[in-house]
Amino acid sequence: MIDQKNIVSRTKVAGGMLLQCTHASDSTATEMRFSIFLPPQKQINQPVPANVLYWLSGLTCTDENFCQKAGAFNLAAELGLCIVCPDTSPRGTDLSGEHESYDFGSGAGFYLNATQQPWSQHYKMYDYVTRELPCFIEANFPVSNRRSISGHSMGGHGALTIGIRNAERYQSISAFSPIVNPMDSPWGQKAFTHYLGSDKDTWKQYDACELLTNLGPIKQTLFVDQGTADDFLSEQLKTQTLVNICEDIKQPCKVRMQEDYDHSYYFVSSFIADHLNFHSQALAA
Amino acid sequence: MIDQKNIVSRTKVAGGMLLQCTHASDSTATEMRFSIFLPPQKQINQPVPANVLYWLSGLTCTDENFCQKAGAFNLAAELGLCIVCPDTSPRGTDLSGEHESYDFGSGAGFYLNATQQPWSQHYKMYDYVTRELPCFIEANFPVSNRRSISGHSMGGHGALTIGIRNAERYQSISAFSPIVNPMDSPWGQKAFTHYLGSDKDTWKQYDACELLTNLGPIKQTLFVDQGTADDFLSEQLKTQTLVNICEDIKQPCKVRMQEDYDHSYYFVSSFIADHLNFHSQALAA
Repeated sequence: MIDQKNIVSRTKVAGGMLLQCTHASDSTATEMRFSIFLPPQKQINQPVPANVLYWLSGLTCTDENFCQKAGAFNLAAELGLCIVCPDTSPRGTDLSGEHESYDFGSGAGFYLNATQQPWSQHYKMYDYVTRELPCFIEANFPVSNRRSISGHSMGGHGALTIGIRNAERYQSISAFSPIVNPMDSPWGQKAFTHYLGSDKDTWKQYDACELLTNLGPIKQTLFVDQGTADDFLSEQLKTQTLVNICEDIKQPCKVRMQEDYDHSYYFVSSFIADHLNFHSQALAA
Repeated sequence: MIDQKNIVSRTKVAGGMLLQCTHASDSTATEMRFSIFLPPQKQINQPVPANVLYWLSGLTCTDENFCQKAGAFNLAAELGLCIVCPDTSPRGTDLSGEHESYDFGSGAGFYLNATQQPWSQHYKMYDYVTRELPCFIEANFPVSNRRSISGHSMGGHGALTIGIRNAERYQSISAFSPIVNPMDSPWGQKAFTHYLGSDKDTWKQYDACELLTNLGPIKQTLFVDQGTADDFLSEQLKTQTLVNICEDIKQPCKVRMQEDYDHSYYFVSSFIADHLNFHSQALAA
């Protein structure tokens, strides 16, 4: 089990336990913080370890937003599901321009491996989320190595791209309000230019629509919820581009346009139960 | 229906609508803000208007904390329950010492009518919550005049004292982590001294334990959840004092000491479903 010195806080919720932890990350060369919800039946040694849903948060978030606002833990407890929420970027560094905008740098790691200086020193969230964090979680908590992945907005982009590129490592993939085609989104273009440089070929590995086009369909159904009253839908998120590509390449997908919902965690909280059930079923299959 | 100019924001959640509204309050002689969740079946004219649960928040909170963190709206939508969350104090004034401490002044109205200058100009949260706000809600939204009341910490104190003193106006009363005996709590003593002056006889009307002792039992069951790992339990909240008095005067109560839970909204979110069901049943009876 995890060393006590790594545990920042411990809060009982929904019969389970929410831990906020830090650990030294090789990927980011910083200390990284995450939150983990352990469902009640897994607090003590049990024969069947919990399966894990990784939740990736959006711009400006930390590991805490989902925990406080999604209202997910009662059902997760019932389903016996562990939920892990990483932070959205490295912290504690002070690179030039790192903390100046809400959509780049701290709080905006975009779940990629930066190649451009100075970002490439620390901004390796792709490696962190895809490899290092699951490795740490599976070594330190009573969980299985069966994983699913979901997220919101920038985190929806993270869930789709990581899930598509590592389809063998995740039983199921879903997203709320994802940036489906960051190469065609001002948020994505800004981030990719700074983190990856101007060669757009290097961007394609972090764009869900490009990945689907180039890697072909994966067997998992992509489950996406998107609010129609989301202020970012037409300029940044562009859900229809994903729908079109899935149709073209015969990628199984279930995209629900949810009438009048916006981009907030109120939207996430309204439909999180459907996503938890979706992942729980896939993890149990 | 409410004038559009009173609506600050409108957010779809759980199939219903969350409105944040302001209105000019006679009680506080300020503008007051509240949030109201309208369950889905009550958005358009319906023959049966929604019953209303009033939720009173704790120290430092606004109308938003419960909305964002309690995870209550999915079940409230299912039950057809309207939830109204007032702010915890007047705002927009700048009395001497009003904004200096977390447990007094702004964000800490204690649901009483202040009698001492300068607080008596604006700090009339008892009148506001008990009379003016329900009147405004029932005149402006498609709701019934059947009400229940609940709250957390200072708001649990508010729910108990307002409910006990106005038992004919509330179908049911519950609280999370309430300050049950503020006259015996540093938070209560500080607030009452400033708001009400040094004559402790005037404090008794705002102390749930004193009210029960002096007014005798009410017919409603007092439903209270309290975490055993709550840092404020022994010094500020003193749940056992309420349990003892209820036993002495044969006041129906259901007090649950919830093992290992703390004072946070994670605790509220863990048991809010039980409270919503409790109130919904009483409101339907």
